[in-house]
Amino acid sequence: MAKKAVVLLSGGLDSTTTLALVKQKGYKCYALSFLYGQRHGAELNAARIVADTLGVEDHQFFPLNLAQFGGSALTDQSIPVPNEPTEGIPVTYVPARNTIFLSVALGWAEVLPASDIFIGVNAIDYSGYPDCRPEFIAAFEKTANLGTRTGIEGEPFRIHTPLIDKSKAEIIRTGLAAGLDYSITVSCYSPDGLGRACGACDACRLRAAGFEEAGVADPTRYQELARTTA
Amino acid sequence: MAKKAVVLLSGGLDSTTTLALVKQKGYKCYALSFLYGQRHGAELNAARIVADTLGVEDHQFFPLNLAQFGGSALTDQSIPVPNEPTEGIPVTYVPARNTIFLSVALGWAEVLPASDIFIGVNAIDYSGYPDCRPEFIAAFEKTANLGTRTGIEGEPFRIHTPLIDKSKAEIIRTGLAAGLDYSITVSCYSPDGLGRACGACDACRLRAAGFEEAGVADPTRYQELARTTA
Repeated sequence: MAKKAVVLLSGGLDSTTTLALVKQKGYKCYALSFLYGQRHGAELNAARIVADTLGVEDHQFFPLNLAQFGGSALTDQSIPVPNEPTEGIPVTYVPARNTIFLSVALGWAEVLPASDIFIGVNAIDYSGYPDCRPEFIAAFEKTANLGTRTGIEGEPFRIHTPLIDKSKAEIIRTGLAAGLDYSITVSCYSPDGLGRACGACDACRLRAAGFEEAGVADPTRYQELARTTA
Repeated sequence: MAKKAVVLLSGGLDSTTTLALVKQKGYKCYALSFLYGQRHGAELNAARIVADTLGVEDHQFFPLNLAQFGGSALTDQSIPVPNEPTEGIPVTYVPARNTIFLSVALGWAEVLPASDIFIGVNAIDYSGYPDCRPEFIAAFEKTANLGTRTGIEGEPFRIHTPLIDKSKAEIIRTGLAAGLDYSITVSCYSPDGLGRACGACDACRLRAAGFEEAGVADPTRYQELARTTA
């Protein structure tokens, strides 16, 4: 019988590639997306389309109002999303986001039960987020196995990060080899109502550079203005 | 200037005692309660009364629908709350609950900012929950400092568990010495609409035994039926 896996799915390029890889490994996939007070619904709509397209056993949208605390350009309307690269950890960092996301994934995994959790973080083009680093993931995995019934009595949880040491170009090549159509994914921090990318934010720049480096056409749907000025 | 602390507050005996201790230490307290799909609102009502009575800088109720996944007698109506002690980890264990709660507390703490987080777990009368053990707390603290901006750039986070090695009787004596009125707290897993305890569940039994061992009158408001049959 196929093993079950919980896969964090934002609908962006990385998490979609991760889901495709987990499917390839033969897991029964349980996709988890968060309604966490993002500025836009385009990302979540992309997550729904990706899960439908790739095929999953279940797809849960978990409400998690991180905007209640604010502190990030992604959850606080008063902090603008920057269009220039910044030094250090950027304002788009959401306090403790991956710790919270992985914790909720852990709760679902324990109920299913599934001992494998996949998250599409990567430490190369990681935008400076502390919670995308391998040492964080390793510490979380240890915490998960100490803080749960399953970790003590059953098969240990494993937090898998198949993209962690890949460049954006390598991720794109991996996904294309798995047959992914990246036009259904949304990475942009400020997409329009149709899910079209701004072409200017950190996430757009990283993504566009990835397609360029991979030497393949960028299938991203851009807003007209961005196309003109890019 | 007084330091800020985030204090997890369920409105039960342990978290209320913890808040009283943190207040005594001179912290500015930010109380955090979760709307996590509990069977009842009595606990949250108690949390509100406790925060108002003891006095806090802010009190946030964070919605977190753990009932979406189920898997515990506390979040799944189809699993009955047991009235007999059980072997091993009880069905009232909520998968990954403290990992999730501490993660959200971490997110708020980073925004405030506050580097001290207090949780009223204890490993003596701990009911068999894996996420109340010191090794879990230590692992979470390490994870917190690896996965956040503050953990890297600022003062490290500390997860404080002032009750972890105290018996229920010692916790009660500590709280009474701090002037607490335990009649405003609710520990019961199945209270009635007025917040009165059943007197029969695990939580009620641990609490009643604590008052008896401490040699003080039990101020808990019990349901009439429970009083008669207890």
